[in-house]
Amino acid sequence: MEKIEAIKEFGGWLNRYRHRSSACACDMTFSVYLPPAAATEKVPVVYWLSGLTCTDDNFRVKAGAQRYAAELGLALVIPDTSPRGAEAPDVPERYDLGQGAGFYVNATQEPWARHYRMYDYVTRELPALVEANLPVTAARSITGHSMGGHGALICALKEPGRYRSVSAFAPICHPMACGWGQGCFKAYLGNDREAWAAYDAVRLIEAGAEAIPLLIDQGTADEFLAQQLHPESLERVCAARDFPLTLRWQDRYDHSYHFIATFIGEHLAYHAGILRETRTAEAVAKPAAR
Amino acid sequence: MEKIEAIKEFGGWLNRYRHRSSACACDMTFSVYLPPAAATEKVPVVYWLSGLTCTDDNFRVKAGAQRYAAELGLALVIPDTSPRGAEAPDVPERYDLGQGAGFYVNATQEPWARHYRMYDYVTRELPALVEANLPVTAARSITGHSMGGHGALICALKEPGRYRSVSAFAPICHPMACGWGQGCFKAYLGNDREAWAAYDAVRLIEAGAEAIPLLIDQGTADEFLAQQLHPESLERVCAARDFPLTLRWQDRYDHSYHFIATFIGEHLAYHAGILRETRTAEAVAKPAAR
Repeated sequence: MEKIEAIKEFGGWLNRYRHRSSACACDMTFSVYLPPAAATEKVPVVYWLSGLTCTDDNFRVKAGAQRYAAELGLALVIPDTSPRGAEAPDVPERYDLGQGAGFYVNATQEPWARHYRMYDYVTRELPALVEANLPVTAARSITGHSMGGHGALICALKEPGRYRSVSAFAPICHPMACGWGQGCFKAYLGNDREAWAAYDAVRLIEAGAEAIPLLIDQGTADEFLAQQLHPESLERVCAARDFPLTLRWQDRYDHSYHFIATFIGEHLAYHAGILRETRTAEAVAKPAAR
Repeated sequence: MEKIEAIKEFGGWLNRYRHRSSACACDMTFSVYLPPAAATEKVPVVYWLSGLTCTDDNFRVKAGAQRYAAELGLALVIPDTSPRGAEAPDVPERYDLGQGAGFYVNATQEPWARHYRMYDYVTRELPALVEANLPVTAARSITGHSMGGHGALICALKEPGRYRSVSAFAPICHPMACGWGQGCFKAYLGNDREAWAAYDAVRLIEAGAEAIPLLIDQGTADEFLAQQLHPESLERVCAARDFPLTLRWQDRYDHSYHFIATFIGEHLAYHAGILRETRTAEAVAKPAAR
């Protein structure tokens, strides 16, 4: 991977990297914020998955997360939302299909199957790359917004043990039941709805996914709430299974990055608490093992 | 003035207004962040002046200032950087002249003189409008970035008593001596360099401007430092007059909003301290006068 940009921020470094992705079969760009602590020790990582139309740029510019990451000693890893470039298929007139709308699945249908493998990219290739090349530990948490909130939920639900904690901002909780999700799942995964269920948080929990606490913030004035997000479906299946869900209704907040900015500090503190706990447990375990 | 947008953020409201400006003879748009405290009391205001190419949007999205303003009980008022729309002249192929590049002066030359009166707009019309219509006091501080840092400095230097405090991020300290300033001053003010001096912080201090402490942050890796910013000229004239200047060189920071985000909290805390002091003095003074 090649470092293509480095900007100092809050005493740490906001870097951008480009690399050839095997999962996506194209060049991919991602950003990493390394907190000041990373100059002297390996730090745990929070992965941020962005929503429709975003690149790695939106979150790093708009969320105000780096301040908290600097204070908490967390690295932030911010991937793009789809394969990019002339190699990857696209539907330029649509914001909700193709480039910018990878939906964090592994596509099986043409013309998408070769490049649109964002699930493998964010859960396997990117962590391996980051952990091999940057001063980070293998302690990972994951969060995201809207389509990226969906991504964070399914990654944590489908990969028990791979993420220490998960949270989401206004996630698409039940993509099979909304227009955004149906449009992408049909294109990328075909007509078999059982294939869709493998990437749907509500269906994964119904199907018995291993429990991991879910922390979700949802604005009551979110303009996409009624049509696209369906947190009530998530509440229903979690209640039925006694699955640990903390769904916080945030009065009069919308779907924008201003909503994310307001609560990202609490999410990062939540992840840091769990990541630190684990780190302490490891640190304690190590001498005992010697 | 008409409220055209309202977004909840950090418990307060990020609003956008449109109004007919008499100073600029066109419709103008500006943003205001009202902290939670403004729901129950009038709060002091920090004015933010943005740099070349910006609208009111850049700062509100990129600087992460609202978090601090919420905590400190400050309103933020964020004007545009020039007149706008079909009525106002422009040079579309240039980012550093015309729309987006008002330079906070009152133009005297054609075709600019009718609309390009940003100095009057930010020092007179906008405060009067804000103070008449929003829950704010007349206690004002001012800050800004690059061209807007220049704007903040000249507003405070030219209007003793009007601003309680001033600070700047990577300001154009001596616009008469740099390409950006010369291009705009020549167009807006003509060839008389004495007219330019009335809008140049270095020349205003040399000419005996009343002392007000200047707090300036400047990144050492700022890509515009050598050609456009000239903080060393400001240091020189301040030293000659014993004018109170705190110029903080910030190691390896650049000219971007990531630099601003890193230090905006300290600037707002500085302004809040002074604005609060004044408010306390007023509160104490009032009962004694009764």
